[in-house]
Amino acid sequence: MDLTSESTTAAVVDSFAATPDPRLREILQELVPHLHDFVRKVRLTLPEWQAAIEFLTAVGQKCDENRQEFILLSDVLGISMLVETLNGQSSGTESTVLGPFHMVASPEREHGDSIALVGGGTPCVVSGRVVGTDGAPLAGATVDVWQCNAEGFYDVQQPDVQPPGNGRGLFRTDAEGRIRFRTVVPSHYPIPTDGPVGKMLLATNRHPYRPAHIHFIATAPGHRELTTHIFVADSPYLDSDAVFAVKKSLIADFVEVDDPGQARAHDVANPFRAASIELVLEPADVG
Amino acid sequence: MDLTSESTTAAVVDSFAATPDPRLREILQELVPHLHDFVRKVRLTLPEWQAAIEFLTAVGQKCDENRQEFILLSDVLGISMLVETLNGQSSGTESTVLGPFHMVASPEREHGDSIALVGGGTPCVVSGRVVGTDGAPLAGATVDVWQCNAEGFYDVQQPDVQPPGNGRGLFRTDAEGRIRFRTVVPSHYPIPTDGPVGKMLLATNRHPYRPAHIHFIATAPGHRELTTHIFVADSPYLDSDAVFAVKKSLIADFVEVDDPGQARAHDVANPFRAASIELVLEPADVG
Repeated sequence: MDLTSESTTAAVVDSFAATPDPRLREILQELVPHLHDFVRKVRLTLPEWQAAIEFLTAVGQKCDENRQEFILLSDVLGISMLVETLNGQSSGTESTVLGPFHMVASPEREHGDSIALVGGGTPCVVSGRVVGTDGAPLAGATVDVWQCNAEGFYDVQQPDVQPPGNGRGLFRTDAEGRIRFRTVVPSHYPIPTDGPVGKMLLATNRHPYRPAHIHFIATAPGHRELTTHIFVADSPYLDSDAVFAVKKSLIADFVEVDDPGQARAHDVANPFRAASIELVLEPADVG
Repeated sequence: MDLTSESTTAAVVDSFAATPDPRLREILQELVPHLHDFVRKVRLTLPEWQAAIEFLTAVGQKCDENRQEFILLSDVLGISMLVETLNGQSSGTESTVLGPFHMVASPEREHGDSIALVGGGTPCVVSGRVVGTDGAPLAGATVDVWQCNAEGFYDVQQPDVQPPGNGRGLFRTDAEGRIRFRTVVPSHYPIPTDGPVGKMLLATNRHPYRPAHIHFIATAPGHRELTTHIFVADSPYLDSDAVFAVKKSLIADFVEVDDPGQARAHDVANPFRAASIELVLEPADVG
């Protein structure tokens, strides 16, 4: 009956043996030995265990409808990126982290609309194209776009700024698989540091910055959903993203265009910047 | 720059390299590979990751001043018991889990006081003795005691019941190292199942019961603090404690005494039960 350090692990693994869902059973029966191995390896003390309980509690209590501190924790521990990498497309565009600022419903917008509703910044035109791995355009695909403003804030971080949905848009591709929208060049920014995850970064001498990027989720019938970014090629922190999410293939030039005719055609001030992204989606049945 | 599943782990470990506190650095640099190994081993999917984020968030949000759902999670995963086992005394009385129902300050009580202020149950007299590993009594030691009532509830689970502090007491040993108090025999009970941890137990076909027990924390100058229980020898669930905390040396007979004279002497109804515990504390400088 007496449990030693090693037999405790076996007893806990065994306690999950009757889990009806085989996948849940597998996950828990692997989680327990990995966590126990960690505890044994560092010989966690009681005050350290207590500090861990308090930290995790504070992370949970920091969460509300506009703040997801556990995603932030997963992000800065590289777990979000690892899960993305394990589940990413084998061909097609590379994926990267969802991040903590996605909202369930971005406002629907039309081809050519601006998503930068308030605040200044460098005007920018983003063109996108959603295609299959065979290069064929995917018409009627949904592209959910979100980004921070030129000061580095997402709309949900500034709930008093009206209208809501600044920096967000839900687009539908045209017959050639295209979307196009106006915005401002996003800024690099610190992930929120006013919570327990921020305290952890401070205590470990890690900076909280992410390089400038725009988020995309592309979905099309019969294809795998793709969650990714484009990163602004001349942004700082491309080499030390606080959430380990940079992939070389996702870095895009935001080219400066000084051409009053083109600016007029896009309904933006001159000069402006222009970027484009191709979102290549695998068929849904590819592993 | 591109991170694979393996190199992500190295990048995250490296990100903690400048942590000023060497112990914090060690803990985080071991935690990351153990968590990443788990994620790779089960090939965690994005919906599973999302479910884990939601679960952990719900655990944090269930916590308040009277409820510690993260301790409960640590308990049912055997982590609390593992940490206790790793940090327990090498000689002296064995330790076991703190549990989620400890309060910072139990009410101070005198020798012979009752801690069962409300509710019925089988009357019980508990005698304790705090000694060093050399058998010498420790006078003036503090013994913090807490237990559930005969229905299986701790006072903090029934905040409307007055006075507060039912089932709790802070005692000080006399010149012979002794404490004595009146109470009722505690019941076996389910750990709280109305939160996310309860849902996990339900989804995994695990029962939530703990065998009947009384908690003790003993402290004496120059000695290591001891956190332990005595378990009631005829309680159900001694072989399947939901939190893996039973140690054979901590099981005590709660002997039935049918003796009006003794009952009068202890100021309890006849018949009653009697239990005793010896709390052996190591010197503070032992490993």
